[in-house]
Amino acid sequence: MLNKLSSVQCFGGQQLRFEHSSKVLNCTMQFSVFLPPQAEQSRVPALYWLSGLTCTDENFSSKAGAQRTAAELGLALIIPDTSPRGDDVPDAEDGAYDFGLGAGFYVNATQEPFAKHYQMDSYVVDELRHLVEAELPVNSLRSIAGHSMGGHGAIALALRNPGLYRSVSAFAPIAHPSSCPWGRKAFTGYLGSDPKAWRDYDSVEMIQAGKPCPPLFVDQGDADQFLPEQLGFDALKVACESSQIDATLRLQAGYDHSYYFIASFITDHLRFHAQYLVD
Amino acid sequence: MLNKLSSVQCFGGQQLRFEHSSKVLNCTMQFSVFLPPQAEQSRVPALYWLSGLTCTDENFSSKAGAQRTAAELGLALIIPDTSPRGDDVPDAEDGAYDFGLGAGFYVNATQEPFAKHYQMDSYVVDELRHLVEAELPVNSLRSIAGHSMGGHGAIALALRNPGLYRSVSAFAPIAHPSSCPWGRKAFTGYLGSDPKAWRDYDSVEMIQAGKPCPPLFVDQGDADQFLPEQLGFDALKVACESSQIDATLRLQAGYDHSYYFIASFITDHLRFHAQYLVD
Repeated sequence: MLNKLSSVQCFGGQQLRFEHSSKVLNCTMQFSVFLPPQAEQSRVPALYWLSGLTCTDENFSSKAGAQRTAAELGLALIIPDTSPRGDDVPDAEDGAYDFGLGAGFYVNATQEPFAKHYQMDSYVVDELRHLVEAELPVNSLRSIAGHSMGGHGAIALALRNPGLYRSVSAFAPIAHPSSCPWGRKAFTGYLGSDPKAWRDYDSVEMIQAGKPCPPLFVDQGDADQFLPEQLGFDALKVACESSQIDATLRLQAGYDHSYYFIASFITDHLRFHAQYLVD
Repeated sequence: MLNKLSSVQCFGGQQLRFEHSSKVLNCTMQFSVFLPPQAEQSRVPALYWLSGLTCTDENFSSKAGAQRTAAELGLALIIPDTSPRGDDVPDAEDGAYDFGLGAGFYVNATQEPFAKHYQMDSYVVDELRHLVEAELPVNSLRSIAGHSMGGHGAIALALRNPGLYRSVSAFAPIAHPSSCPWGRKAFTGYLGSDPKAWRDYDSVEMIQAGKPCPPLFVDQGDADQFLPEQLGFDALKVACESSQIDATLRLQAGYDHSYYFIASFITDHLRFHAQYLVD
């Protein structure tokens, strides 16, 4: 099922890249995995990392520096791509960076011509998870995290699937997509123009509606150029404060939206998740 | 003199990119710098990082994860490009990756048409150093390190300039360029076909000739695809063992030539240098 494309030793573990035929997405997909050294002895817990707009599975793998602490804590990192891929997969008509290829927004599209391929919710939550747990030395303890569009994806998928993820964290998430340009564009294109159809993928709205959430940890840079218009940090904070969610939201002075921000705090996120990834 | 292109906060310090007009190279150059948080209070020591074939200043900046430990230790990282750049700069006729642009080999070329621009030795040792120490909050305590072609550069420049660098380290250096295909091609092109002209840029030959060397630390992966033909690790080991150099050479089981290898051990290198970068 899995075709191993590459394997490189890193911090005593293995940084791997796989290719497989996705039934859910109707295309060939690639994803990356870091297996810590502990995985040679026994199955290890897994942290799923959902990346942001324009990324593939390789950005986080090469730029976040997460392997160091993941190796120390014995966590596998599972890093999917950000959209279906391939010549048959429809892209934004204008080749925009914020819709279509590289911008799947972790939803199951209902609109044509996207519905056939853009089923990233089911891909991450079901197909990739089952594949990884069947074929790699990971156990069923799992958490989820992500950046920007992937931060939205991580929180939304955790809220939509109670009990599936032990904890959730995000860097600069698009936390309230129904109310920002990126989210409205993507949700209109994938889910249709009726905002009612967006509610079940909008983290702020799901929290406001009382959906249960695993422990949540968010870092947001206050020098992030996308903070004012796109990211909904304040709305997320208000929603968490008025709910019963165990949430820690940090506004980090001076940090922007880049992988230099992620690298600076990824260890805190990994340690946060590790405390919940034990039986 | 320095035009700041970007500044991003990282581990409490600043990841910076600059552009300047290089008199030595006769072109516009870009380079990257990490300033640790300690540089806001006082001048800090600097580690120069020389990158490998095909790299710019951005590979190490984004992939090595060095800022974490550099911030902890209070070290600045100075990261030059790997060759002169620009439309006026001659490249390899066949566009090869291992000669010309991205492959300056840290020598002062004597051969046409390269001599006008390919003066990377003087650029790193003199021009960039003076510029950095005049315009940035670094002091005159400095060490040098690099990867592959840049590992060759680091060791060769340290050997050619006694007293200039407090310590030197390398990942998978091209330690004996006169005896490998990469080195022979580059040295022939830049320095001419007489191997006598290569000796003063060949680390193994300089060590054999008794040149003094600051404390040296080398990591080499034993799964490095370039180890058998290009890297001269055994020759370097023999040369060091027969000299009075304070050298530690480690063969790391399972590691390849990539930035995943560098990331795995960069903290050891930074700690090695830090012990010598004190008054």
